[in-house]
Amino acid sequence: MAELFQIAGAGDPRLRDYTDLRDVSLRKLLETERGLYIAEGEKVVRRAVEAGHRPRSLLLAPRWMESLADVLEATDAPCYVLDEKTIEQVTGFHVHRGALAAMERPEPLSPETVLASARRVLVAEDLVDHTNIGAVMRNVAALGFDAVLLSPRCADPLYRRSVKVAMGAVFSLPYARIEDWYAAPDLLREHGFTSYAMSLAADSVPLDAIEIAPGERVAVIVGSEGPGLTEHWQQAADHRVTIPMAAGIDSLNVAASTAIACWHFRPR
Amino acid sequence: MAELFQIAGAGDPRLRDYTDLRDVSLRKLLETERGLYIAEGEKVVRRAVEAGHRPRSLLLAPRWMESLADVLEATDAPCYVLDEKTIEQVTGFHVHRGALAAMERPEPLSPETVLASARRVLVAEDLVDHTNIGAVMRNVAALGFDAVLLSPRCADPLYRRSVKVAMGAVFSLPYARIEDWYAAPDLLREHGFTSYAMSLAADSVPLDAIEIAPGERVAVIVGSEGPGLTEHWQQAADHRVTIPMAAGIDSLNVAASTAIACWHFRPR
Repeated sequence: MAELFQIAGAGDPRLRDYTDLRDVSLRKLLETERGLYIAEGEKVVRRAVEAGHRPRSLLLAPRWMESLADVLEATDAPCYVLDEKTIEQVTGFHVHRGALAAMERPEPLSPETVLASARRVLVAEDLVDHTNIGAVMRNVAALGFDAVLLSPRCADPLYRRSVKVAMGAVFSLPYARIEDWYAAPDLLREHGFTSYAMSLAADSVPLDAIEIAPGERVAVIVGSEGPGLTEHWQQAADHRVTIPMAAGIDSLNVAASTAIACWHFRPR
Repeated sequence: MAELFQIAGAGDPRLRDYTDLRDVSLRKLLETERGLYIAEGEKVVRRAVEAGHRPRSLLLAPRWMESLADVLEATDAPCYVLDEKTIEQVTGFHVHRGALAAMERPEPLSPETVLASARRVLVAEDLVDHTNIGAVMRNVAALGFDAVLLSPRCADPLYRRSVKVAMGAVFSLPYARIEDWYAAPDLLREHGFTSYAMSLAADSVPLDAIEIAPGERVAVIVGSEGPGLTEHWQQAADHRVTIPMAAGIDSLNVAASTAIACWHFRPR
């Protein structure tokens, strides 16, 4: 059972995990140093706990005590209770859901672990935007993909904004960072995956022309928002695939093209 | 040729179309009253003009004069030139692209006009979020749909945020609002469209089981972000369709499900 603490003011040092949530660069540093991430909103907090992640502490406005009673019951972490106005002073933004938890970051998985049991993998190169990472992971999870691999420069899936956009899909979907990005095509090949690089190149195969063999293990590779996939991946992938588009439209954004690709390559 | 005006300060009354761009409710009122909308960024300004929309005025930082020379050449609207810092004072936010135009809103189209020549229509019910409207219209346009119909409560596709997310697709894609939303199913039927309502209902047909007859005119109906499609539409549509999803995931967001549906129903 969580121990409850009524907190008097925003300056209480026990709230230090929750300060300045709007400051992206400060939070990046702080969350990595302290090995934590922030779950925001009743639903997301519950999902994080259900996924087996451990709360370091919770910060709740009084009205959330009841609906999160089961979560509080199941943890030994301290729960700080504070009115919503003061919570906003601490975090620096309007916490419209009034329920926060500082969660311990789970141990990172290795790409090998993630690939071992997967049949469908989404590989993301340099998606630096937290909203896009969150949206991509939500789509990938919804469409039955098993795992996500990230290039070193991809944004953090456990950053508050990513978690929020992903609706918590980042907790249940296994993912790993590939440190040696240059060797990634070989890594996939060694694990028995056929790689499909999403591309705008003129000689790409239209998505609807691609048929998957029964039992085939599929890796879909998507590039960054601006320049798209690097030349290295374009050349190294087994296939280059494009989503045929109407004239005059630049491209779909990465969340939309991922959704369409994952739909086409979904496990059946 | 646009007449150039060097503007001295943020208080100049000629800049009134550009004030307080961050204030959503004020801007809504103001843009409707004055019959204008704001195009932001070199690319979007050019697309708006190429789509035949008329600038009332432009507001540019000096460095954009050259790259927009063709646009300035082709218009009689005044062009106000101002340093980027003062532009930010006027608009109230960081205009990272330093090029704005106040455009005359085009005359609204009627649903009948829009439907007359379309084969693929996306119908949106109560998408109140500007980002979602923009993302949906970008996806719809990219996948070769011909038009969009909006319920009365849908967000404004010409609001700055929608335009930006849509990458200008709102200029070239015909759209109309349906005033009598209750009669919308009949309207589509009268125009020879088969309607497919995207739904989470258990008895919906999986999307991949749907085959379209040659020459069929297709209307895809998507519901609002929270509650999904209203019961009225669920009952009135010719078919209820669902995107099969992995266990434990609530749903795809509306931009992703629209992308997948439009991909499935794309004209071939």
